[in-house]
Amino acid sequence: MSMNAFGHLFRVTTWGESHGPALGATVDGCPPGISISEADIQRWLDRRRPGQNKYTTQRQEPDAVEILSGVFEGKTTGTPVQLLIRNTDQRSKDYSEIAEKFRPGHADITYWQKYGIRDPRGGGRSSARETAARVAAGGLARAALAELAPKVKITGYMVQMGPHHIDRSRFDATEIERNPFWVPDREAAVEWADYLDGLRKSGNSVGAVIEMVASGVPAGLGAPVYGKLDTELAAAMMSINAVKGVEIGAGMGAAELTGVDNADEISMGPDGPEFSSNHAGGILGGISTGQEVVVRFAVKPTSSILSPRKTITKSGAAAEIVTKGRHDPCVGIRAVPVGEAMMACVLLDHLLLHRGQIGDAGGRIG
Amino acid sequence: MSMNAFGHLFRVTTWGESHGPALGATVDGCPPGISISEADIQRWLDRRRPGQNKYTTQRQEPDAVEILSGVFEGKTTGTPVQLLIRNTDQRSKDYSEIAEKFRPGHADITYWQKYGIRDPRGGGRSSARETAARVAAGGLARAALAELAPKVKITGYMVQMGPHHIDRSRFDATEIERNPFWVPDREAAVEWADYLDGLRKSGNSVGAVIEMVASGVPAGLGAPVYGKLDTELAAAMMSINAVKGVEIGAGMGAAELTGVDNADEISMGPDGPEFSSNHAGGILGGISTGQEVVVRFAVKPTSSILSPRKTITKSGAAAEIVTKGRHDPCVGIRAVPVGEAMMACVLLDHLLLHRGQIGDAGGRIG
Amino acid sequence: MSMNAFGHLFRVTTWGESHGPALGATVDGCPPGISISEADIQRWLDRRRPGQNKYTTQRQEPDAVEILSGVFEGKTTGTPVQLLIRNTDQRSKDYSEIAEKFRPGHADITYWQKYGIRDPRGGGRSSARETAARVAAGGLARAALAELAPKVKITGYMVQMGPHHIDRSRFDATEIERNPFWVPDREAAVEWADYLDGLRKSGNSVGAVIEMVASGVPAGLGAPVYGKLDTELAAAMMSINAVKGVEIGAGMGAAELTGVDNADEISMGPDGPEFSSNHAGGILGGISTGQEVVVRFAVKPTSSILSPRKTITKSGAAAEIVTKGRHDPCVGIRAVPVGEAMMACVLLDHLLLHRGQIGDAGGRIG
Amino acid sequence: MSMNAFGHLFRVTTWGESHGPALGATVDGCPPGISISEADIQRWLDRRRPGQNKYTTQRQEPDAVEILSGVFEGKTTGTPVQLLIRNTDQRSKDYSEIAEKFRPGHADITYWQKYGIRDPRGGGRSSARETAARVAAGGLARAALAELAPKVKITGYMVQMGPHHIDRSRFDATEIERNPFWVPDREAAVEWADYLDGLRKSGNSVGAVIEMVASGVPAGLGAPVYGKLDTELAAAMMSINAVKGVEIGAGMGAAELTGVDNADEISMGPDGPEFSSNHAGGILGGISTGQEVVVRFAVKPTSSILSPRKTITKSGAAAEIVTKGRHDPCVGIRAVPVGEAMMACVLLDHLLLHRGQIGDAGGRIG
Repeated sequence: MSMNAFGHLFRVTTWGESHGPALGATVDGCPPGISISEADIQRWLDRRRPGQNKYTTQRQEPDAVEILSGVFEGKTTGTPVQLLIRNTDQRSKDYSEIAEKFRPGHADITYWQKYGIRDPRGGGRSSARETAARVAAGGLARAALAELAPKVKITGYMVQMGPHHIDRSRFDATEIERNPFWVPDREAAVEWADYLDGLRKSGNSVGAVIEMVASGVPAGLGAPVYGKLDTELAAAMMSINAVKGVEIGAGMGAAELTGVDNADEISMGPDGPEFSSNHAGGILGGISTGQEVVVRFAVKPTSSILSPRKTITKSGAAAEIVTKGRHDPCVGIRAVPVGEAMMACVLLDHLLLHRGQIGDAGGRIG
Repeated sequence: MSMNAFGHLFRVTTWGESHGPALGATVDGCPPGISISEADIQRWLDRRRPGQNKYTTQRQEPDAVEILSGVFEGKTTGTPVQLLIRNTDQRSKDYSEIAEKFRPGHADITYWQKYGIRDPRGGGRSSARETAARVAAGGLARAALAELAPKVKITGYMVQMGPHHIDRSRFDATEIERNPFWVPDREAAVEWADYLDGLRKSGNSVGAVIEMVASGVPAGLGAPVYGKLDTELAAAMMSINAVKGVEIGAGMGAAELTGVDNADEISMGPDGPEFSSNHAGGILGGISTGQEVVVRFAVKPTSSILSPRKTITKSGAAAEIVTKGRHDPCVGIRAVPVGEAMMACVLLDHLLLHRGQIGDAGGRIG
Repeated sequence: MSMNAFGHLFRVTTWGESHGPALGATVDGCPPGISISEADIQRWLDRRRPGQNKYTTQRQEPDAVEILSGVFEGKTTGTPVQLLIRNTDQRSKDYSEIAEKFRPGHADITYWQKYGIRDPRGGGRSSARETAARVAAGGLARAALAELAPKVKITGYMVQMGPHHIDRSRFDATEIERNPFWVPDREAAVEWADYLDGLRKSGNSVGAVIEMVASGVPAGLGAPVYGKLDTELAAAMMSINAVKGVEIGAGMGAAELTGVDNADEISMGPDGPEFSSNHAGGILGGISTGQEVVVRFAVKPTSSILSPRKTITKSGAAAEIVTKGRHDPCVGIRAVPVGEAMMACVLLDHLLLHRGQIGDAGGRIG
Repeated sequence: MSMNAFGHLFRVTTWGESHGPALGATVDGCPPGISISEADIQRWLDRRRPGQNKYTTQRQEPDAVEILSGVFEGKTTGTPVQLLIRNTDQRSKDYSEIAEKFRPGHADITYWQKYGIRDPRGGGRSSARETAARVAAGGLARAALAELAPKVKITGYMVQMGPHHIDRSRFDATEIERNPFWVPDREAAVEWADYLDGLRKSGNSVGAVIEMVASGVPAGLGAPVYGKLDTELAAAMMSINAVKGVEIGAGMGAAELTGVDNADEISMGPDGPEFSSNHAGGILGGISTGQEVVVRFAVKPTSSILSPRKTITKSGAAAEIVTKGRHDPCVGIRAVPVGEAMMACVLLDHLLLHRGQIGDAGGRIG
C-alpha cells in the first residue's frame, strides 16, 4: 500500500530528497544469513555515481552507504536493513527561481498540484538522486540472489541513444564496462561520444533505450494475474525517473509479428526445455520459462536544458525558465545500474514468493 | 500482496478458470452510494463478448454478470461487491492433448513448471476469458468515476495491426464503435478487414497496438515513487494477457527526442495550466498534469494457430501440436475494452488514494 | 490493504451479506496440489451451522459450499479458490423496523454513520453469518496444513459462559464434541445447559470465553514487529463478530505475575527445547516457541434480546426496539469453529511466510 | 505485507536494533502541510525515555530524534518522513553469555529458531528499545490528527500493577503526569511505589495493565471485517513488546455480561447520538460510534530478573542464567507512551482510509 515502497516479501521503501541531509532505503524481508558489507553495496553505487565522466552530472557525491541495521557480524539477520546515504554536496544555491517557476518536463508542477507544498531543492523527492537508494537496495538483493540462486546473472546496457542504435552483430558484453555509455558495441561507443558531446555543448539532451537481460532465472517465477513477473518488471522499470516505455521480449514490436513468427517452439535440452527463439522475453502467462528474461525501457531526454522554455509561476503568471546547473545530457546512462537494481529486487522477491507458496526453487521438467 | 488482485483502496481480485463453473471479480473498497445495476455492467461486458463478428472467437458466451453482494436497492453499500459470470459454453471437448503437450506461446508450460499441476481446460486461469472479470470490475469503476469525477472520459482504440498503422490525420473518434477493430480511421478499418481475413483463413494471427486516452483526469493523481500513476498504469496494462509492451505519452519514441523537443511548455489557460504538447502523456514525476493521460500497449499475436509447431510433452518427449478450436486471429481487438477497464480501475483507485492522503479532489492552480 | 481481507500469502477476502443471494470467500495464494473437496470443507461448516440445537439460531441454512475455481480433479491448482455459499433461508420478513431504528449493540448505527447507506436485511455485512465464509476458508487452510505441517492440531472449546468457568481439573478433550457448548468438562456442560435455558426463555443472552490451542506448531513462525504471530492471532480473533478481548498464554492475567513466576524455564527434550510452563502461550517476541499456541477470546452477549431497549431512528427521534427473530442466546457457542478457522488461516499463512523468507520449515535446535 | 510495518495509508516501518548505530521509523503516506519539528516529536520521546526515575532502566539514552526527510520549512511535504534516533549508550559490555544461552521469557530462543542468526546485543530487534521508533512515529501522527481531527484526545494510564488495581472512584486525570507510573489515582501511586521498590530490590519484576482512551473520535472510522477499528487496535497493541492481552470496552469481562446489561442504549444528544453506557468501548461492528474509544492491554513482567533460571545453550546443553544489567522492574510503565503512540497511528490511518473511500470526515447523524 505504501506509495514509496515496492516488492512483497523483499520489501523496499525509499525515502529522502535530493538536497536534504540524507536519503536511503528501508529493506524489510531480506533472508537471514546473507553475507553483506558496506563495500559489497558500495560497488554498485559507484557504478551509478555522478561526476565520473563528462556525460554525467558534475555534482560530486561520494554516495557512501552506511548499513544502520539488520546486519550483524557481516550477515543479514532477517530484520530490516536500513541503508543510509548522506547528501554531502548540498550547495546552498539559490533555488528561489524553481520554487516559484515550474520547469517544463519536471515534476515541479505536479507535486505542487498534488501536495500544495514541495521541497524545491534540487527537485526534492522527484530527483534522479532518489535512485541511489534503489541501487543500494539492489546491491543487497544481488547478494541474496548470489546465495539463493547463484546462476542468476543480470546485465544492463544501452541499445539506443537518440536516433542511434547498436549493431547487434557487433554485440560484445565485455565492452559494456569499458565505455561511459554501457554500450555493448565498441564502435557505437565512439560514435555516440561525438554525438553526445555535441548535444552537451549546445545545452541540449537526448533520450535512450536500456536493455536488461537476466540469465539463469529458474522456470516458475511469477504468478497470475497481477503478480505476473512481467507486470512487476514493467512497474519496477516504469517507476524509474524519466522512463516512458517498457518492453518484454519482442515488446512493442510484437504487434508486427504473426502467430507463426511469434511462436517460440519448444524442444528438450540437457537441462530442461529449450526454445527456438525468445520473443516471449523469458515469460509466458506472467511466469518465467527458464530462458533469459529480457526487458527494455526508454528514458526521455533530461528535462533540464539550457534553452529557455515557456512556463508559468505558482500564481499562474507567464514566465521563461532556463535550467542551469549540473545535469546529465543523457540521463539514460545512469539509468543502467538503476534498472539492474530494480531487476534484482523483483527477481529476488519472486524467488521468495515462489518458495513461500510452492516450497521449492521452481522448475519441474528436466 | 495477493497475486490475483490489483488496486489499493479500490481493490479487485479476479478468480476463475476458462472452463470451470464460473469466474468473477471480488471488489473491495468501492465507495458507497454509487448507482449500479447488472445492466450498467453488462453493457461493458457486451463490448468485450466473443462471437460478435468473424474476427473474434466463435465461443458463445452470454457473459451475463450477476451482482451477488455489496449492492442494496441499486446503490453500492461500501462493502465487497461480488461480480459473478457463469461459464455456459463449456464444451466437453477433449483437452487431453493440451493436458499432455505444451502449446508454444501459451502459459501451459510455465504453469506446469510453477505449480506441477494445472487446469488444462481452455487454458484455465491463463485464458483471455479471465479478462471478462476485469471488464466487469471496470464497469463498476466507471460508475464510481461518473459520480466522483464526472469529467473523466476513457476511450480506447486500435492504432496498429501488424504492419498497418492508422493515419492520425484521419482520426475520427466516432468511427471507433462502427467497425470490428475499434479503429478511429474509417479507411484503415476497411483495409484491415481484408488483411485480417487473409490471416484468419490461413490459420495465422497477428499482433496489435491499443491506445487509450483518459481526458478530464484531475491534476495531482499518483504518488512517488512506486505508486506513480504511470507505474500503476504500466502494471495494469502489462497484466493483460499477451501484452508485451507499454508506453506512456511519447513512449519508446522518447528515446529519439532531444530535450528541446520533449519539453511540453506551460502556459496558463482559463481552467488551469495548459501545455504546448503532451510528450509526457499527462504524467510528470508519476503524477497527473491535468492533460490527457495517454497509454499504449502492444498485444502479441494469438498463439493458437493452425500451423503445426514443435513442442514437448510433460515428460519431455518431442511432439508437434496444432491448436484447433475457436480463436481470435487478432486478440488485440478484444483487448480494447479490457484496457479501458483497467484504466478506469487505476484512475478510480488513485482518486481515492489522493483524497485519502490529501483530502481534496486534486489540482491547486487556476 | 483490502479491508475485507486478511492474510499475506494465504489471502482470504470474504464477501456477502446475510440475506443477499450468496456469500463466500475468495482465497488467493493457496499452495498447489492440496487435496480438497466440497465435502472436506462442508464438515467444518456443518459444525458451525445454525439450527442444530436449541441454543443456536433456528434459522435453517444448509450452508452448502460450492468450489467455483482453483481446484482441478480434486487438487488445488495454486490459483484463487472461490468458495460460495448460497443463502436459502432469506425470509422476506419485514425489516422496515431495523431499517429505521438502530438496534443497540448492533452495527446498524455505525454502518449508517460510516456509509450513509446499508443493507438492513438481517444485519447485512455485519451479520454473524459472514463467519460461514471464514469457516469455509479455514477448511481449506486445514487441508493445506494437513499436508505441509501434519503435526499441527487445532482445538477450540468454551472455558467460560457468563459467570461459569470450567474446572480445569476435569478437562477432557473428548467431551468437546459431545455437548452443544464445545465444553471440555462434562459436568459443566450439564450445568450450563440449565443456565442457558433460563436465559433463553427470558429472552436474554450471555457472553462466553473461547480458548484455542494449536499443538505441533513448528518453532520459528511469526516475525518482528507487526507481523508477530500473536499480533496476527489477536487481529484474527478480534475481527470475529462480538469479540471484545483477546489473550495469548497468561493473557490479561500476566499483569498479576512476577518475573520469577512468569519465566518459562527451558530444558532440552528429545525433540527440541522444552519449557517448564507456558505462560508465553507458545510465542516469544512474536515467534512460535514450539510449545502449544494458546489463544483465548471473549465474546459479548448476543445483542438481539427480547427486552425492549431505548434507541433512536435514522432521523434522530427517540424510539424503543425489541429484536424479535431467531437468535442465539450465546453467540459464543458458534464462535468456536470460527476461532479455529481463523487460527488455521493464520498458522498456514505464517508457515508460508516463513518458508518464503527463510526457506525451511522452522526450528533449528534439536 | 512488510512484517516490520503497520498501517495502510499512514504506513510506519520501524527498523533498527537495541545496540546498533541507530534505529528509526520510515513513515510513508503522511498528509502534506502538517506542521512538525523535531521538538514536537521529542516531547513524546522524552515521556518514554529510560532513566528518568528509579523504576525504569538506568540506560542513559537521549533518544534525540532527527528528521531526515519529508519535511520542508517546518511542514510535511507528503513524501516519506524518516525519523532517526541514534543509539549512544552502546556499552561494549560482554554479551557472550546471552549470545550462547537463551534467556527465559525473552525472544533469544525464537529468533534463533527462526533465523539461525541474531544480533544478541541488548536483545537486538526484540528489545523494548524498538518502541522508541513507534513513539516518534506516533508524535507525527498526533501532529496530523491535531490538524485533521483536532477534537481527538488520546490519554493512556496504568490501571493495574501486579495485584493492585486503581480505585476508579478516585480517578483523576491530572494525576497521570504527576507520578512515575502514569496512574490516575494519587493514593495508588504512593502504595505502588512501595510495592515496586520491594520488587526492584529483590531483583524481581511485575506485570501491569494499561488503559487508553481516545475521545473526540468521529463516528464512522473502521471497516468490515478485518479492517475493523478494534481489530487494528488489537493488532497495534499486541505488537508492543511483552503484551499478552488486549481488551476493547468491556473486554474479557464481556463474557460475564448478559444481553440486557450489555446493551448501550441510544438517545439523541445535542451533538449526535449518545449512549447510556460504553460496554462497546466506542466501537460497534468494527466502526467507531463517536463515544470514547477504550482499549486496555496487559504487559507481562520484565523477563530480565536477578533470580537464576534454568535454560539451555545454543547447542542444547543445560545451563543457568541470571540476567544482569539495567532493567525496568515494571516494563508496563514505559508501555504507556507506546500504547498512546500506536493508538494515534491507528486513528490517523483510519481517518485517512475513511476519507479515501467515503470522502468526508465521518458521522451522519446530528
